Amino acid sequence: MTAASAPADVRHQARDGRLTGPTAGLAPGFTQANLVILPREHAFPFLLFCQRNPRPCPVLEVTEPGDPVPRRFAPSADLRTDLPRYRVWRDGELADEPTDISSLWQEDFVSFLIGCSFTFEAPLLDAGLPVRHIELGCNVPMYRTSIDCVAAPPFRGKLVVSMRPFLPPQAIQAIQITSRFPAVHGAPVHFGDPAQIGIEDISRPDFGDAVEIRPGETPVFWACGVTPQVALMQARLPLVITHSPGCMFVTDRPDAELAAN
Amino acid sequence: MTAASAPADVRHQARDGRLTGPTAGLAPGFTQANLVILPREHAFPFLLFCQRNPRPCPVLEVTEPGDPVPRRFAPSADLRTDLPRYRVWRDGELADEPTDISSLWQEDFVSFLIGCSFTFEAPLLDAGLPVRHIELGCNVPMYRTSIDCVAAPPFRGKLVVSMRPFLPPQAIQAIQITSRFPAVHGAPVHFGDPAQIGIEDISRPDFGDAVEIRPGETPVFWACGVTPQVALMQARLPLVITHSPGCMFVTDRPDAELAAN
Repeated sequence: MTAASAPADVRHQARDGRLTGPTAGLAPGFTQANLVILPREHAFPFLLFCQRNPRPCPVLEVTEPGDPVPRRFAPSADLRTDLPRYRVWRDGELADEPTDISSLWQEDFVSFLIGCSFTFEAPLLDAGLPVRHIELGCNVPMYRTSIDCVAAPPFRGKLVVSMRPFLPPQAIQAIQITSRFPAVHGAPVHFGDPAQIGIEDISRPDFGDAVEIRPGETPVFWACGVTPQVALMQARLPLVITHSPGCMFVTDRPDAELAAN
Repeated sequence: MTAASAPADVRHQARDGRLTGPTAGLAPGFTQANLVILPREHAFPFLLFCQRNPRPCPVLEVTEPGDPVPRRFAPSADLRTDLPRYRVWRDGELADEPTDISSLWQEDFVSFLIGCSFTFEAPLLDAGLPVRHIELGCNVPMYRTSIDCVAAPPFRGKLVVSMRPFLPPQAIQAIQITSRFPAVHGAPVHFGDPAQIGIEDISRPDFGDAVEIRPGETPVFWACGVTPQVALMQARLPLVITHSPGCMFVTDRPDAELAAN
């Protein structure tokens, strides 16, 4: 696997079982997406939850019931096989972490592709901004906040945010750049004092890895795609399938196409 | 009725039967919205149609099934009574045009508020741009195009656009301003030659009124909220309720809040 692989190559390696780990850095320049699969009866309230909370849940595509092909973002792909690893959730508990979900597929499954911050990190780096967790080669730090999402029963929960530390002029530039990408979380939701959004200890993220905040830097917080996963788990549905963390779906769409216009 | 009425005043006058006509110019500065009401079984595919076609179908709010209160855009309102006039569609045909739909209300009704170009016309006027149909006191000209919407069965159809003529420097400014309002159709979809988007005769709009295009001006085309209505009618559902043309729902949200951020 080389970093320059085309999206279809990455997906084929996942399909063949040659790729079973994270997709960060693969097929650079192409949008990667979070995946949520659930039965049609829950698809309407989940789409409603996304519509009501577009910052953490930017919907890129929703498939027709039973159709495993994301016809707009990757018409040659198969969502049952083309991710390196999946998570199967039963009654809100992690039940399995397979590399293929063909045997679990149901005719009423609806798949959601949801935007991912990978897409806006590329233009941050292109602008010369240092992105700490990428420099460190670790996962972005993520925190549960005290901010309630707008509920769409049975889906509800707190907003989860990711954090990147910047000097103020860098933060301003990062706000400008990410504002152009509403389809992948858009502008930050907060910067500065973590306590103002209910984060008690910035050195202990709830998900991902801690990163250093250096003198003069301010933490900048973006709505995070873990938010819908938390809402899904809390709803304790009989069956939900998602991507495994870091093992995203690689689409055929260039990141640049997701810039607002 | 004065132009300076607050949104709740406009809604109360509609509720009391004192206002039964168009809402253009009422409660200036507050967002007005298109209304679509349909049973829950059709709400998921309709929300999907909107998600797949965000330019013509920018969803502002979707209510819970059976709830006539738009809790985010006007928590004191009642969608059964607070529009001046409704249209009732049965099997795709206009069946009635009442001023109150309380007697038709069903516990499985889901209501959609969809953004309307009134919201971006205010900042166009504020910027000193002439908006021809407002100067003339007529309805904006609207055209069926040859552009297919992305289908979400049973909903499909052609894109409908509204047209405003501008001199090129004005058109550029209008593109910049409306780009800031993705929640109300956003940037234009085309300018110049009408034939390129399948419009045969610019002097004969399919909806609304014709307006003059003066020497040096170019027609500029925006995706239009009539698009979802056309898709709804083509689906020939047993029962759909919409606002009557021009008789919009007046929300409590300032137009400025809908600017992208």
